[in-house]
Amino acid sequence: MEKKKQELTTQPYRGTRDFFPPEMQKLRYLFGVWRTVAEKFGYEEYLGPFLEAWELYAAKNVSGEEIVNEQLYWFEDRGGRKVALRPEMTPTVARMIAQRYQQLPKPIRWFSIANFMRYERPQKGRVREFFQLNLDIFGEPGVAADAEAIEAAVAIMKEFGASENMFEIRINNRKLVDHLLNSKFEIRNSKLEQVMRVIDRMAKQSNHQTIQQLEDLGLSPSQVKSVLSLSELDLADVDQIKDSSDGAREVVDLFDLLAERGIDRFVKFDAALMRGLDYYTGNVFEQFDLNPNNNRSMFGGGRYDGLADLFGVKDVAAVGFAPGDVTTLEFLENWNLLPEFDAAAEVLVTVFNQDLRQNSWQIAQALRESGIKTELYLKNDDSITTQLNYADRKSIPNVIVVGPGEVDTETVVLKNLTTGEQKTLPLVEATESLRAASPR
Amino acid sequence: MEKKKQELTTQPYRGTRDFFPPEMQKLRYLFGVWRTVAEKFGYEEYLGPFLEAWELYAAKNVSGEEIVNEQLYWFEDRGGRKVALRPEMTPTVARMIAQRYQQLPKPIRWFSIANFMRYERPQKGRVREFFQLNLDIFGEPGVAADAEAIEAAVAIMKEFGASENMFEIRINNRKLVDHLLNSKFEIRNSKLEQVMRVIDRMAKQSNHQTIQQLEDLGLSPSQVKSVLSLSELDLADVDQIKDSSDGAREVVDLFDLLAERGIDRFVKFDAALMRGLDYYTGNVFEQFDLNPNNNRSMFGGGRYDGLADLFGVKDVAAVGFAPGDVTTLEFLENWNLLPEFDAAAEVLVTVFNQDLRQNSWQIAQALRESGIKTELYLKNDDSITTQLNYADRKSIPNVIVVGPGEVDTETVVLKNLTTGEQKTLPLVEATESLRAASPR
Repeated sequence: MEKKKQELTTQPYRGTRDFFPPEMQKLRYLFGVWRTVAEKFGYEEYLGPFLEAWELYAAKNVSGEEIVNEQLYWFEDRGGRKVALRPEMTPTVARMIAQRYQQLPKPIRWFSIANFMRYERPQKGRVREFFQLNLDIFGEPGVAADAEAIEAAVAIMKEFGASENMFEIRINNRKLVDHLLNSKFEIRNSKLEQVMRVIDRMAKQSNHQTIQQLEDLGLSPSQVKSVLSLSELDLADVDQIKDSSDGAREVVDLFDLLAERGIDRFVKFDAALMRGLDYYTGNVFEQFDLNPNNNRSMFGGGRYDGLADLFGVKDVAAVGFAPGDVTTLEFLENWNLLPEFDAAAEVLVTVFNQDLRQNSWQIAQALRESGIKTELYLKNDDSITTQLNYADRKSIPNVIVVGPGEVDTETVVLKNLTTGEQKTLPLVEATESLRAASPR
Repeated sequence: MEKKKQELTTQPYRGTRDFFPPEMQKLRYLFGVWRTVAEKFGYEEYLGPFLEAWELYAAKNVSGEEIVNEQLYWFEDRGGRKVALRPEMTPTVARMIAQRYQQLPKPIRWFSIANFMRYERPQKGRVREFFQLNLDIFGEPGVAADAEAIEAAVAIMKEFGASENMFEIRINNRKLVDHLLNSKFEIRNSKLEQVMRVIDRMAKQSNHQTIQQLEDLGLSPSQVKSVLSLSELDLADVDQIKDSSDGAREVVDLFDLLAERGIDRFVKFDAALMRGLDYYTGNVFEQFDLNPNNNRSMFGGGRYDGLADLFGVKDVAAVGFAPGDVTTLEFLENWNLLPEFDAAAEVLVTVFNQDLRQNSWQIAQALRESGIKTELYLKNDDSITTQLNYADRKSIPNVIVVGPGEVDTETVVLKNLTTGEQKTLPLVEATESLRAASPR
């Protein structure tokens, strides 16, 4: 007696995505642009494991508290070890760099493209599985490395076809913020972290709320005023304090380098920019979409010297950034920058009948050897009309038909389904014609 | 009072691998060949989530018992749902196909390249995180689909440069095995599964052990003899029973098609081939390395019609295969088939001094725009010798030097570090020379 089987759901786990071929084409386009630009700048690709020891994220000053306490997927493996699904690449890459730091020539320019998991409440722009490019320079403490990271971020946007009216990169410096709050505004060390958290929220809440929160922290009216006016500070103000603040000097030097490279039009100084993560130590930056309907942060980056200390390797300079697939694809869709994608196959080779199936296979084989993406029809007994309809439904742009007449004259019929044009010609010429039309 | 920080290990989680750039180049080469061949055959790329509901694997007849009971990584998420890290792609792709089966034109040719996790005891050739190509055809029940899958598997090996003395694909049919054991050898249905398990182990143990195990299952001496002689059965024997066994006919038809396509020299019939997984229903195949020092199974595939039944979608025909990174890379290394890989950058643009750093940047920028992978030196005050040494250590084949003399004459010095050749020439010509030397 067989019980009725319980049917399983066809839906993916909450917050994760199925990438059917049309969605996958977008993701591949994204990965392709990321990889192309990283390679143009001479970066080497690496990859770390999807599972890491839980301790790697829990260590103080690595992943932010929100990630560890609320967003980290972790569990005990069958051997009782606490392991975590990577929520970001930085702890992994710091671990890998620490493992081989001494023997690698510096600077080390590395990038990776990988999948990550965070336990998020699914909503627009928030998913649980996502992809990120991580691009970093290790072993170069100078501001030239910061400039190159920002230049690479801009180069990626240009490669996507984005222009300066579509996005901007806001820049600040962690040491400058410390200097301003501490030495200039005379806010006590013990309050710094909490005040920074309020500043981080400032753009997303009312002035009234910000004032209330700062007063609750015991700031004087003049201190509150100073904090509120942070975002009005400009580079000329920063330039005046560069002798007393390393952070100020680093920002000014960075903007000089960006101007030399002609990308100052994409960037803006913003003394109120905080960046959530705890490990940043110098210049920080964040890219914003300027679309009025979607004016939000896309991703961030910055300098995080000394993270490899955790592994006993001192003074490793590091700067980098990490754009994700979700915000980038949203950006490209909103600005209408995604290209049209081609069908997987450039040509369908039809099968006239069982006696001629080997001829069709030989043609398919020859086309593939010439690098042409070729589908061979799998049935021997469907009408040519049925086969043309199949090509049409799959948007395959070309079809080859080989009947007894063509076999006798050693030709093929090449039909372009977009134009309707149809020619009888030798296979070599058909191949040439398809190659000429082939992308790249 | 600061406590001494506990240092974290730089080693990856047990059984997982860090892919430093040299290892990553191999992985990329592998992925590149897989993708190139899949696309030549007109397959579309898809991707599923890394996490899936635990039920997807636990359902009867999906993943084998060994995977679910011993190898599956699973845990409860913060919402109390049982989730699993994917140990293979087939359940996911069956779920995705079921989700859109009605609207997709058939046959559906899909492939994916992804990472997977299994809890294995780490040893040679066994890791916990691995990568697989999954290539499948859905919606075509005919043997032509089986032939195409095997043809694609062979095409991948050819693209790697492998020849027929290096590997072979053994082919069998599940229905044929049932027919032989049941109708010919008259082994009772209730014993079939256990007998098949013994056959599956046959090649790895002594004849004596096999006989003992079959006798323990209550097989008669003549039944034992029949089972032992399974591997001596040849295609001519199978041809004789093709009217009484669908499985026999499918195998014979498959070999006919493979012969038509000239790939019969890579394949071999083997009536003792079982394939561990439970979901196969027709032709099955397994690829073996013929290297005498590493004569083992590389991967398998076959027909698994009806798996989408689990999701309430009836009669979905499916056939495919899934090679992994570990056995493939071992094969390529043992047969010395891996190519030499280039350095990440084709050229290093040196910086003469701070005054000329913008000139160097402009040259780097122009080279990148011409598609040349270019590193720009990040310091302004290192000697050219130091910069040449850096290029040498990183195996960057070319270096460009721009001193005051070159700026005045609008030229650059292009030095080839392999040949030692050095030329002073306009940037356009240097670019042309680098492009000519550029791979592809």
